[in-house]
Amino acid sequence: MINFQTSPDQYKHWKLSVDGSVATLTMDVQEDETLAEGYKLKLNSYDLGVDIELADAIQRLRFEQPQVKAVVLTSLKPRIFCAGANIYMLGTSSHAFKVNFCKFTNETRCAIEDDSRHSGRRYLAALNGTASGGGYELAIACDEIYLVDDGNSAISLPEVPLLGVLPGTGGLTRLVDKRKVRRDRADVFSTLAEGLKGKRAKEWGLIDDYFPTSKFQESIDNRVREIVSDVKQTVSLRDDAEASNLNGVEASQTNSLLYDQPHTDVPPPVGIKLNPLQVEIKPAGREYKYVNLVLNREQRYADLTMRGPECRPQRTPEEIEREGEAFWPLQAYRELDDALLYLRVNEPEIGLVCLRTEGEVSNVEAIDETLVTHRDHWLVREIVLYMARVLRRLDLTAKSFFSIVEPDSCFAGNLLELLLASDRSYMLNNPDQEVEIMTSQLNAGALPMSNGLSRLQSRFLAEPEKADEALARTIPFDAAEAEAGGLITFAPDDLDWEDEIRVAIEERTSLSPDALTGMEASLRFAGPETMDTKIYGRLTAWQNWIFQRPNAVGPEGALTNYGKPTQAKFDFKRT
Amino acid sequence: MINFQTSPDQYKHWKLSVDGSVATLTMDVQEDETLAEGYKLKLNSYDLGVDIELADAIQRLRFEQPQVKAVVLTSLKPRIFCAGANIYMLGTSSHAFKVNFCKFTNETRCAIEDDSRHSGRRYLAALNGTASGGGYELAIACDEIYLVDDGNSAISLPEVPLLGVLPGTGGLTRLVDKRKVRRDRADVFSTLAEGLKGKRAKEWGLIDDYFPTSKFQESIDNRVREIVSDVKQTVSLRDDAEASNLNGVEASQTNSLLYDQPHTDVPPPVGIKLNPLQVEIKPAGREYKYVNLVLNREQRYADLTMRGPECRPQRTPEEIEREGEAFWPLQAYRELDDALLYLRVNEPEIGLVCLRTEGEVSNVEAIDETLVTHRDHWLVREIVLYMARVLRRLDLTAKSFFSIVEPDSCFAGNLLELLLASDRSYMLNNPDQEVEIMTSQLNAGALPMSNGLSRLQSRFLAEPEKADEALARTIPFDAAEAEAGGLITFAPDDLDWEDEIRVAIEERTSLSPDALTGMEASLRFAGPETMDTKIYGRLTAWQNWIFQRPNAVGPEGALTNYGKPTQAKFDFKRT
Repeated sequence: MINFQTSPDQYKHWKLSVDGSVATLTMDVQEDETLAEGYKLKLNSYDLGVDIELADAIQRLRFEQPQVKAVVLTSLKPRIFCAGANIYMLGTSSHAFKVNFCKFTNETRCAIEDDSRHSGRRYLAALNGTASGGGYELAIACDEIYLVDDGNSAISLPEVPLLGVLPGTGGLTRLVDKRKVRRDRADVFSTLAEGLKGKRAKEWGLIDDYFPTSKFQESIDNRVREIVSDVKQTVSLRDDAEASNLNGVEASQTNSLLYDQPHTDVPPPVGIKLNPLQVEIKPAGREYKYVNLVLNREQRYADLTMRGPECRPQRTPEEIEREGEAFWPLQAYRELDDALLYLRVNEPEIGLVCLRTEGEVSNVEAIDETLVTHRDHWLVREIVLYMARVLRRLDLTAKSFFSIVEPDSCFAGNLLELLLASDRSYMLNNPDQEVEIMTSQLNAGALPMSNGLSRLQSRFLAEPEKADEALARTIPFDAAEAEAGGLITFAPDDLDWEDEIRVAIEERTSLSPDALTGMEASLRFAGPETMDTKIYGRLTAWQNWIFQRPNAVGPEGALTNYGKPTQAKFDFKRT
Repeated sequence: MINFQTSPDQYKHWKLSVDGSVATLTMDVQEDETLAEGYKLKLNSYDLGVDIELADAIQRLRFEQPQVKAVVLTSLKPRIFCAGANIYMLGTSSHAFKVNFCKFTNETRCAIEDDSRHSGRRYLAALNGTASGGGYELAIACDEIYLVDDGNSAISLPEVPLLGVLPGTGGLTRLVDKRKVRRDRADVFSTLAEGLKGKRAKEWGLIDDYFPTSKFQESIDNRVREIVSDVKQTVSLRDDAEASNLNGVEASQTNSLLYDQPHTDVPPPVGIKLNPLQVEIKPAGREYKYVNLVLNREQRYADLTMRGPECRPQRTPEEIEREGEAFWPLQAYRELDDALLYLRVNEPEIGLVCLRTEGEVSNVEAIDETLVTHRDHWLVREIVLYMARVLRRLDLTAKSFFSIVEPDSCFAGNLLELLLASDRSYMLNNPDQEVEIMTSQLNAGALPMSNGLSRLQSRFLAEPEKADEALARTIPFDAAEAEAGGLITFAPDDLDWEDEIRVAIEERTSLSPDALTGMEASLRFAGPETMDTKIYGRLTAWQNWIFQRPNAVGPEGALTNYGKPTQAKFDFKRT
């Protein structure tokens, strides 16, 4: 079982050091500390275990070290920054694992950009050696890229020429859409196994600058000093607003709760501590404090229940800071995040997740009110941004989601997003029982999807007024009202309820899992596209395809023959 | 060899009848008239041969019947409109053929939408029987969909539940992005093998209306009368502007030569005739009047040379009408279109096309000036719109393109688009010889890519001022100037020229064809996304992947077992 929980004292491959407002994340991958057997992590190449640590470090910085303004990514190894994902690990992994591995590494890189865009931390890739493949893709997720000029170190995307696959972590998309490298230069760069060194790499916009070995550390330090002293940041080629959303209009119509500008208030000197989650592992499930996951493995579906907050105290920012990781939104969403990651990687045969909630609608409303009232406080801001990332993780999970709305549920406000993120929803229509859903201000844009829209906007592309109506309503919807308002898919009465749910589950889990993955990816993200949707929706699909092809993974494929004396032989038919 | 040239007198599967301003395209597929062996085209199912006729009919209407205002698509078969792509044809086709088949059918449906959007012809799908799979996808490419209410006829997308693959002709994308059907309803519809009948189909926005059998023809006739008498068209759910481009801003900044509004001038009563192209078929190539295709099959690349116009007369619209299909832009681009389609389907192992031009730069400039001057004339308009479609066909062709600029070439104006559409360009830098390229007003937005941008805009996303500079220049660029202006990739001098071209070709044709296809799809379309880019870039990729998976095409796959007594058995691991 792959465990996504870690902390700096357990890191094997990264060192996280913080000095005032500067954090340094140093990569020093231990060859033998692999997640599975059969490969060595040479030259700072990585497997999922390495990336779990990186994701933890970035997450932890935001909550534990809010005073940090600049994050430097660099390497402890001589002459190599990072050689990308380990090829032998890829070669020995199942297709489903490869795809989930790429998805997680993509989410980690998007989390870097999310931190930069919304929380104003500036990420610098200090490439003190060669960055190839996923190594350069990690760099291009940063705001600024600096390469040592030692006559040897280069940046490269050698996947196409050497391996017959695509760079799997957004590299191609970020080349042309984030750094806006000219497409013909991107074409040359992406087919050049040896890559480019400082001068031309800078000329083509692939890096921001290069410095000789003797001046490298000093130049990075100077740049970091500029950043932390709030010197105008003119170096990067990247236009943040554009990079975050390629299609200005629609997405920018979302309301002001969308944190699309870095906050400017002075962050506090001390953050809160994120301790490991407590989870009881059962033979068929995982029980957290607010999340309960029950696996019906025979029937290939899971029941995931989120429990709402126990009470409705209005808290001050100071109280929230004191409560810290135990504050309901933070703990509940950390648990949900962990459950989703667990499901993706450890339970591949679970094809459907039935989402339920338990608790008082009014308690969720009270929590949302607290979050909205104090939205400018650094911790509340980080919590809401994190909730948004977890919900996007759900959107991007290759499993079907059905929301089941029954008595004693609390699909309200932030938890209503679970329902809106589902492929379908079923709400019991029984006038004798109280079954309700409800909106809050958090549904108005604070928890955007990857396409930049709120889930209500995405739902009502044809009838935007229905999103406004749902948001304007200040009392709960019963099943008939929710159906009339377009918020749910089906509202069976109590006579049909059990049969209908049972049949829906049976039908869904009988369908081709591949076709469902492609269908859901196509239906979930209507409307505008962003760099993120391009990476997840388009690049991932191409990568999926190429990773299955004999030209990559067949006996004569390029991936199979990498590092062997034999050479790849291609079937040259173009598709 | 598959031939893309046809005409109504040769149609086997469609009947095209025109009555004043109303055209009717009636589908009556002949079971045994298939393009290959091994399947029968039952129930108005189609293969590529059927779609070649449809594409021809739509193209022909625009040039030969410009007075037509409404096009009704219907069926001659009882109780069935169209059952979609023939499953047995798909089952017996190679992967590369399946993908190219889907690409062509997608282009045909986009051509329907292009006609509707830019030339104002209104397409009505008169579903006098069931439309399933590709049948419904054909309907949803039309502006309005009407279904007979006979207690039996339904619309459906049964690919996911019955075949374990995706609808391959843009159906999922158009459901949520064009008709803006709610995603949960789209989910239900796309997993319901039997589909939906009139009432619920209308309620969910999947059709515009339904009529009982006794009133069906009359209702269609009434609607057609409304259209041709210019009654306000309120029935369709579709917002044309939005459907054509999901991200208003960037794309709408393109200049006024972008024909994004239907023309309003009264079209003439008579069009021009499109006769079959004359082509000399050689063992290793095809020679048209203005296009010469030479196949270096051993080396897996082709040389495609376009010859510019022979002279530079300024023509009046009346003269252009008289010249008709022989007018250089129309004939040259029809030939290019045919050569591209030929290459895609008949020469799968050709991985690289080297594009060259021959002729006088000033002649091309003169032609472009004529096209710009008379852009409001119906025929000039149709010609430019057609040139744009052919260039998009090139953008979407899964082969690498290198432009080679040498003496006596004429990469100017509309032919400069070939260079801008290429993955790379090489321009000889020899001060002793005249080697030039040049822009014209046609480069300013009249020939947009699928992403809604001009190729200059797409090229210079990081430096939009360079696009303006290139457009503002009224004299040719030599190699050094073209390189400084960012218009070309490399400008080798005459000493290096031959070696550099040779090595570039050898290197390109040695790479994995699959990785190149995915890479080019990722690099060619930076910037905003439209429904078209979603269909080609995202849906196609997912479809490619799913079409390769054992769950679809393995011995126990759903596609393999369709129509057999055996049942599909899935590996339920979710990817």
